[in-house]
Amino acid sequence: MAEKLDTKGITVKKADDMPQWYGQVIIKAELADYSPVRGTMIIRPYGYAIWQKIMDYFNTILKDLGVENAYFPLFIPENFFHKEAEHAEGFSPEVAWVENKDEDSQERLAIRPTSETIMYDSYARWIRSHRDLPLRMNQWCNVVRWEVKDVKLFLRSREFLWQEGHCVYETEEECDRETMMYLEEYATLLEDVLAVPVVRGKKSEKEKFAGAKYTTTIEAFMPDGKFLQCGTSHNLGQGFAKAFGINYVGKDEKEHLPWQNSWGFSTRLVGALVMQHGDDRGLVLPPRIAPIQIAIVPILFEKSKKDTLRACSQLKKKLSKYEVTIDDREEYSAGWKFNQWEMKGVPLRIEIGPKDIEKDQVVIVRRDTSKKYFVKNEELKEKVEELLEDIQNHLFDKAHEHLKKSIVEVESWDEFLAAVDDRKIIYAPFCGAKDCEDQIKDKTKGANSRCFPLEQKETSKKCVYCGSDARLYAYFGKNY
Amino acid sequence: MAEKLDTKGITVKKADDMPQWYGQVIIKAELADYSPVRGTMIIRPYGYAIWQKIMDYFNTILKDLGVENAYFPLFIPENFFHKEAEHAEGFSPEVAWVENKDEDSQERLAIRPTSETIMYDSYARWIRSHRDLPLRMNQWCNVVRWEVKDVKLFLRSREFLWQEGHCVYETEEECDRETMMYLEEYATLLEDVLAVPVVRGKKSEKEKFAGAKYTTTIEAFMPDGKFLQCGTSHNLGQGFAKAFGINYVGKDEKEHLPWQNSWGFSTRLVGALVMQHGDDRGLVLPPRIAPIQIAIVPILFEKSKKDTLRACSQLKKKLSKYEVTIDDREEYSAGWKFNQWEMKGVPLRIEIGPKDIEKDQVVIVRRDTSKKYFVKNEELKEKVEELLEDIQNHLFDKAHEHLKKSIVEVESWDEFLAAVDDRKIIYAPFCGAKDCEDQIKDKTKGANSRCFPLEQKETSKKCVYCGSDARLYAYFGKNY
Repeated sequence: MAEKLDTKGITVKKADDMPQWYGQVIIKAELADYSPVRGTMIIRPYGYAIWQKIMDYFNTILKDLGVENAYFPLFIPENFFHKEAEHAEGFSPEVAWVENKDEDSQERLAIRPTSETIMYDSYARWIRSHRDLPLRMNQWCNVVRWEVKDVKLFLRSREFLWQEGHCVYETEEECDRETMMYLEEYATLLEDVLAVPVVRGKKSEKEKFAGAKYTTTIEAFMPDGKFLQCGTSHNLGQGFAKAFGINYVGKDEKEHLPWQNSWGFSTRLVGALVMQHGDDRGLVLPPRIAPIQIAIVPILFEKSKKDTLRACSQLKKKLSKYEVTIDDREEYSAGWKFNQWEMKGVPLRIEIGPKDIEKDQVVIVRRDTSKKYFVKNEELKEKVEELLEDIQNHLFDKAHEHLKKSIVEVESWDEFLAAVDDRKIIYAPFCGAKDCEDQIKDKTKGANSRCFPLEQKETSKKCVYCGSDARLYAYFGKNY
Repeated sequence: MAEKLDTKGITVKKADDMPQWYGQVIIKAELADYSPVRGTMIIRPYGYAIWQKIMDYFNTILKDLGVENAYFPLFIPENFFHKEAEHAEGFSPEVAWVENKDEDSQERLAIRPTSETIMYDSYARWIRSHRDLPLRMNQWCNVVRWEVKDVKLFLRSREFLWQEGHCVYETEEECDRETMMYLEEYATLLEDVLAVPVVRGKKSEKEKFAGAKYTTTIEAFMPDGKFLQCGTSHNLGQGFAKAFGINYVGKDEKEHLPWQNSWGFSTRLVGALVMQHGDDRGLVLPPRIAPIQIAIVPILFEKSKKDTLRACSQLKKKLSKYEVTIDDREEYSAGWKFNQWEMKGVPLRIEIGPKDIEKDQVVIVRRDTSKKYFVKNEELKEKVEELLEDIQNHLFDKAHEHLKKSIVEVESWDEFLAAVDDRKIIYAPFCGAKDCEDQIKDKTKGANSRCFPLEQKETSKKCVYCGSDARLYAYFGKNY
């Protein structure tokens, strides 16, 4: 029964209906499942293993950067939100509230949609002197935003897991520099580990974080022509410090307001991986993030079974620096196993049967290209290393190619509209005004400015929509 | 200013007022802080680093045992609770409820106090055949129990972090065996890693988990004569399977009800560590769980500073298999730093100054005994290894000695009452009846049965309180 269900594979092509395809891959590769609680999802072990690898990688980065992990309460008193006006306004529609069971308290408690307010209340108590700065803290936790009814697995749900970093500095310059540094670490995670190329930029006034001076972002571009915001880093200026009374005594023995930033990415990154690299047979995982890098499938016959399984164990031992699994289940056929490991996106499959043992070789099959290699045992280690490296690069290059060739520079509103229809990345001069952006979104049924790219060319052009002076070029497109 | 505050140290002796002492150690060692949200706490980086080490250790155990990590929603629909009657009744006073913002839904959502119900709803969908069993899953998450108003840092708070394992088996025998296996893994974590000795046993009817067939527990015994429950493992029988419709088709091609267990420990373990090993100068951490195992404090003079710091770096390199920090801050005196690393419980302090460099030696000071060693550089690695091992063992042995000598076997109710006053571990024949236990608790102002120890001697004795037939011997005492 299970066999029948699983081998059915994905019933729709990625190119034909990406949302349908995406949902099927997530369910059939057992990354996640729908939950009986509206708007929420269940992260299954295979999906969580990817998130764990992301956490492990990023924790080593945090340690190098002197950022320490901590944990703050899930509940935030209502009055904390109101201390920073823009922040309160930005988040209020999304906040879930808890019924306060204490008879002697009327105060409503929010379930954290983000933790600036609850953390900075403590920062005000902890920070006294310039010796306490910079303070760099992070937490891995769940957050709740009520916005959505219909969950999109990993991409949009009422509860998700994330990391949120919150730092405090003496100077604006230090704060600026590190705001960009964390963004660049995000870009490195996406590009070098997940093989997902991104554009780096600043958000418009309309799209920036509620309460920030400015927001920077990394944006991936999915194969169906939609952007996916993958991480943001906010320079918060001094607004929260003022609102929460964070002060420090400087070397000059006077009181000063510090500067702050916050930055986060979420389990959404798992969704980015799936969309970016998957194909019509399922998931395709870059080796550096794959929970299992190599699946060994023995070709079992009754009389050679023992020898074949012994060869598998030796192989696994030889490849002990990788995550290797031996699929020795006897209730499934080799062909069924091939399909399953393909569905799960395992980068390399190694097949080994009695004939291979005779020839002192194994058969290696790449998940990304399906190319088959007959490899002598003495060359195995090198070949595996080379292939894994090559898969990692190939996946990035393919995605990067798609991103680059999707960018079109437009001069006029007509060109803009045509590019929206073509699902391109639109590169155009933009005034940056909120009102103008609202109108663009309205006229295009959803395209908005994704960011002002960090690298800018000088422009004296006019805004592509309203014709007023354009400050900068921006990228536009629809988004998840 | 900061210097003045910190060197004040702990103002009360552990032996005189343990709760006061405990709170001060937690705050001054910066493990945690009180939160502005009633009943909750903030885990600061040093406390979180200990929790991270516990998670890392236990994740390797889980992997070996074939238990996979996953993540289920924070919210649980109200009707899920009512499916298993005992469970609903047991947890209902503690549950926090969310205001449902959906206009088309009236259902209240609970914030998980534990995840049996939300997980088993999915298990019913995922489990079809005996091939899907055993299913072994775990999640690391936050849970909320409204019970407390006044937080006891790490020991009792409305929100805490924990792991909860949830497994499903074909047979009762397998379920029994693994229920005990997870308990034994908990005991190993406590004894071998945290150096906290525990007694292993079964809970009475009154104290067992709501909805379980039986609950097993590990209980530590604190220096002030109170028990601390440190982890529990529940055999859930088939009650939840029935309530949630979890069935599987066996090898006999018929439908069967499976057996289940669940098991958990929480951030409370950090509290156990503090109470068990700390002294009047602060925290004392066993080397295997200390986030920093060695603090190097250079003795700095202007003209030899460069050489001393270079020697510190070389030392750190030489000891790279440990977590080592060099405290080269110039704004604090060496003496102040000694106090601080003692407060933080770092197992070994290494002092190095120009005279030591001349003699090719360092000074090593143990945190647990304050003993000082002059160690030649050529003997350094061996000596450090030996000392760390010795500290780990010494801490365990000291705690174990206290536990063992605290046990008193009592025959009569008068002896029982005297032993309660003496803050002993009371070992007595007990009928196990709920009503009898209620009366014992009432008459002793809080002593209750902590567990029936796993190893039992045959008894024909009568219950120490009610005089009816005693089934088994139990440990009694007050508890945190």
